[in-house]
Amino acid sequence: MTLEGKSLIGQRTVGGNTADIYAIDPSNGQKLEPPYQGGGQAEVDLACGKAWAAFDAYRETSLEERAVFLETIATEIEAIGDELVERAMAESGLPRPRIEGERGRTCGQLRLFASVVRAGEWLDVRIDPALPERQPMPRVDLRQRHVATGPVAVFGPSNFPLAFSVAGGDSASALAAGCPVVVKAHSAHPGTSELVGKAVQKAVKHCGLPEGVFSLLYGSGRDLGQALVADLRIKAVGFTGSRQGGTALMKTAQGRPEPIPVYAEMSSINPVFLFPEALNNRADEIAKTFVGSLTMGAGQFCTNPGLVLAVKSPALDTFLDTASAAVKESAAQTMLTPGTHQSYEEGVNRFSNHAKVREVARGQQGSGPHDCQAALFQTTASEFLADEALQQEEVFGACSLVVECSSNDELKHVAEKLEGQLTATLHIDEGDLTSAHALLPTLERKAGRILANGWPTGVEVCHAMVHGGPYPATSDSRTTSVGSAAIHRFLRPVCYQNLPEGLLPNALHGGNPLDISRLVDGVREA
Amino acid sequence: MTLEGKSLIGQRTVGGNTADIYAIDPSNGQKLEPPYQGGGQAEVDLACGKAWAAFDAYRETSLEERAVFLETIATEIEAIGDELVERAMAESGLPRPRIEGERGRTCGQLRLFASVVRAGEWLDVRIDPALPERQPMPRVDLRQRHVATGPVAVFGPSNFPLAFSVAGGDSASALAAGCPVVVKAHSAHPGTSELVGKAVQKAVKHCGLPEGVFSLLYGSGRDLGQALVADLRIKAVGFTGSRQGGTALMKTAQGRPEPIPVYAEMSSINPVFLFPEALNNRADEIAKTFVGSLTMGAGQFCTNPGLVLAVKSPALDTFLDTASAAVKESAAQTMLTPGTHQSYEEGVNRFSNHAKVREVARGQQGSGPHDCQAALFQTTASEFLADEALQQEEVFGACSLVVECSSNDELKHVAEKLEGQLTATLHIDEGDLTSAHALLPTLERKAGRILANGWPTGVEVCHAMVHGGPYPATSDSRTTSVGSAAIHRFLRPVCYQNLPEGLLPNALHGGNPLDISRLVDGVREA
Repeated sequence: MTLEGKSLIGQRTVGGNTADIYAIDPSNGQKLEPPYQGGGQAEVDLACGKAWAAFDAYRETSLEERAVFLETIATEIEAIGDELVERAMAESGLPRPRIEGERGRTCGQLRLFASVVRAGEWLDVRIDPALPERQPMPRVDLRQRHVATGPVAVFGPSNFPLAFSVAGGDSASALAAGCPVVVKAHSAHPGTSELVGKAVQKAVKHCGLPEGVFSLLYGSGRDLGQALVADLRIKAVGFTGSRQGGTALMKTAQGRPEPIPVYAEMSSINPVFLFPEALNNRADEIAKTFVGSLTMGAGQFCTNPGLVLAVKSPALDTFLDTASAAVKESAAQTMLTPGTHQSYEEGVNRFSNHAKVREVARGQQGSGPHDCQAALFQTTASEFLADEALQQEEVFGACSLVVECSSNDELKHVAEKLEGQLTATLHIDEGDLTSAHALLPTLERKAGRILANGWPTGVEVCHAMVHGGPYPATSDSRTTSVGSAAIHRFLRPVCYQNLPEGLLPNALHGGNPLDISRLVDGVREA
Repeated sequence: MTLEGKSLIGQRTVGGNTADIYAIDPSNGQKLEPPYQGGGQAEVDLACGKAWAAFDAYRETSLEERAVFLETIATEIEAIGDELVERAMAESGLPRPRIEGERGRTCGQLRLFASVVRAGEWLDVRIDPALPERQPMPRVDLRQRHVATGPVAVFGPSNFPLAFSVAGGDSASALAAGCPVVVKAHSAHPGTSELVGKAVQKAVKHCGLPEGVFSLLYGSGRDLGQALVADLRIKAVGFTGSRQGGTALMKTAQGRPEPIPVYAEMSSINPVFLFPEALNNRADEIAKTFVGSLTMGAGQFCTNPGLVLAVKSPALDTFLDTASAAVKESAAQTMLTPGTHQSYEEGVNRFSNHAKVREVARGQQGSGPHDCQAALFQTTASEFLADEALQQEEVFGACSLVVECSSNDELKHVAEKLEGQLTATLHIDEGDLTSAHALLPTLERKAGRILANGWPTGVEVCHAMVHGGPYPATSDSRTTSVGSAAIHRFLRPVCYQNLPEGLLPNALHGGNPLDISRLVDGVREA
């Protein structure tokens, strides 16, 4: 497929007024053709107009129609073939198995949402039948379902060019909910975005849906992105990226005449707690698997384990020795973009130059211009507590800080001081259960996911997943951006009182024609 | 019971630094004893400290313990007896049957939430069991439940001194979710608040709960209220009141280092659509029941029908004639506070003095200083569309505006121009179904509840109710403040990955010991 370097608005291909967005191959710093034409207010207006025009029809498509649409997107993405894998590799520096795996995850995610749409749980149907004989007042017939909130603006990150980009988790869940989607393409992978965008365009056409269900815009985040969030036809925002980027969108969304929800997944250092018996029993194994998680994908995951907490002990020294050796052996890996690499270097330097932080180990130096050299640092809990910057510092990449605590109480105190997190990890054996149990209430208040004897990287796309957490991990702790529950972000309840069946949506008809789980008079009918 | 005029913080009674809050009997303008001592930052700090200290224990009370607590509050409120009814009548000007009915609703609401807590649907339990044999990667065990968000600040309105005040819908749903509650007493009914607050205090003690589960503070909204929302231990806000008050709290909540959700129910004019055949068949009956809804409780309901839309026709003239006569006959009723009465008069005068608005009728003049004289006005759709103030004007009280449209298309156009609403009402007969159906998508986008052939006043407390809607009806259209779904406002999901059963909350144990509905591998088990 010849890449055109233009925005996709509905079924159209639309040029912009600039031509200065190039993907960079981070392995060699070279520009990749073609240049992408950045749009502005005019393109936002066109895309949002089409999205708005499509909204009422799209949100009332049948469960089956919408599920087939999601499945068709997956099929069309697979049909692109190796061109997609190669372009994504060139634009991201990520290796082939990772991109192939991510393509599988992206398509699997779309198919999961298709099954979620069909099951209809998301409608949250509640029926309280009329009680005409009730005293002192009769009850009228009341029925509730959830409806789509409206067109959604999606901003993906650089680190998942497929699974959290154009047809990734935010788009899939919004489309599943019945919301048209306007994606702002990430400038780090414009070609991958165009390929996937055209696959979605084809699916829209193939399924006979209104064209405005999907658009893909190129442009600067500050201008086009802000204009998109400010457009009154946009009713929610999905974002994965930096704290600075997320809070800027939150501000715009809250300043609108009609404020709208922003689901921003932003910042997390993902504390790992190593308990004494686990450390005693298997410090080496924990250290090796830790470094595996730390350096996976050059550490470029939201769930990268950036903070390790443990009580001072000989076993902790063993952990540090083994981790140090593993980090030193770790190969350099190309980072996603020159900017990501520069930020990583700056973050590592802040630790290196910090008077109270000791460098434990650095990984292998790379030969490429944007290679990640892993880094492990160490400090004490009292130093960590004394410097707020240390508590908040997310260094995006394979960098982690081990905090040595003088006691279990101090460890718990450090945990209480942490900001909101996506994950919290426990390494525990039988004898650690009591102290781990005492820490759980703190972790439940701090994190969206708590895991034992594993590592936070590797986020399963399923029904029970929570990829979310208190601020600043996300802007809205009431939700998840990964897994089937993500659909609820783009829905709101509507109650229908005493409506004749002819006006009721079929989800609420008496005979349960959609065969979905309902709450009838407060009792669950599966 | 002797009223003490002080804040209730945990089990303590705490004076403040001012003594200038008096209830006013709106029927005669007289101050009611005792004066209430207003608190400030110190009282906020004390209450939030106790709430925070209580949080972890309270949120892990068993379903049964928490349900019994809610039921005990109801029993204690009933045990106050007639003193509560008389004080609420004196402070609100509302008649005895209304206050008695509201007490019943308040206690019924608490008992409904007790049943909701026991049923455990709110936990939203999801279990994705481990799949160790899955290819290419095994799946770990993942389980999700919802947990309470944290202490909640509650601000009630003047118009429901019981059902939306100290132990009203916001408090009941927050306590049901496992959140301690700090209520800022409404200065219009401080004595009613104290009586109910002491009933909750007793229930906390009786149930052996940590005292910080409940506090009640007196003070000014601007100072104490803002300090409460700014306190970092408060994690969500429930508010019912004016748009100005709600948006001020939203701003404070968003400006915190950790922004928190504000559930503000604010402003709605509740459009009513009269369709031609319904009007032809029963203009008189619709007009009479309309005026009944309009003047009920002196029109002091969030769901008061403040806007009536219909296409010009002789039947609409009949409606107007009959409504005019009914308004003229309508008796004056004491309004809630001097301020409410003054705002009502100002709002009515804005309509009266508007060059393009015709006065259809005024109700009977009252003899009390704060009586509501009902008012009905009329204008055309073109005038309505030409003046944004007319589209947004909520006059709190028995005042409504009839907008005459030249065609069905114009009526739909007007509907599209409306802001977000709590309700939208259709009066329809068989022949109106097609045009009503065409209007539904607009109404679904605009309102939280759509009702047919009834009136929006009278909000049933049940499972399917939605008392919510797009901004500015509320600050968050994804929820409801009335009905059992209100509990979800104060919950967030937490995922537990690979945790040994000894660390898992019992809601997530394998054998389903709580016997609750669960989603297992995406399949609903009732």
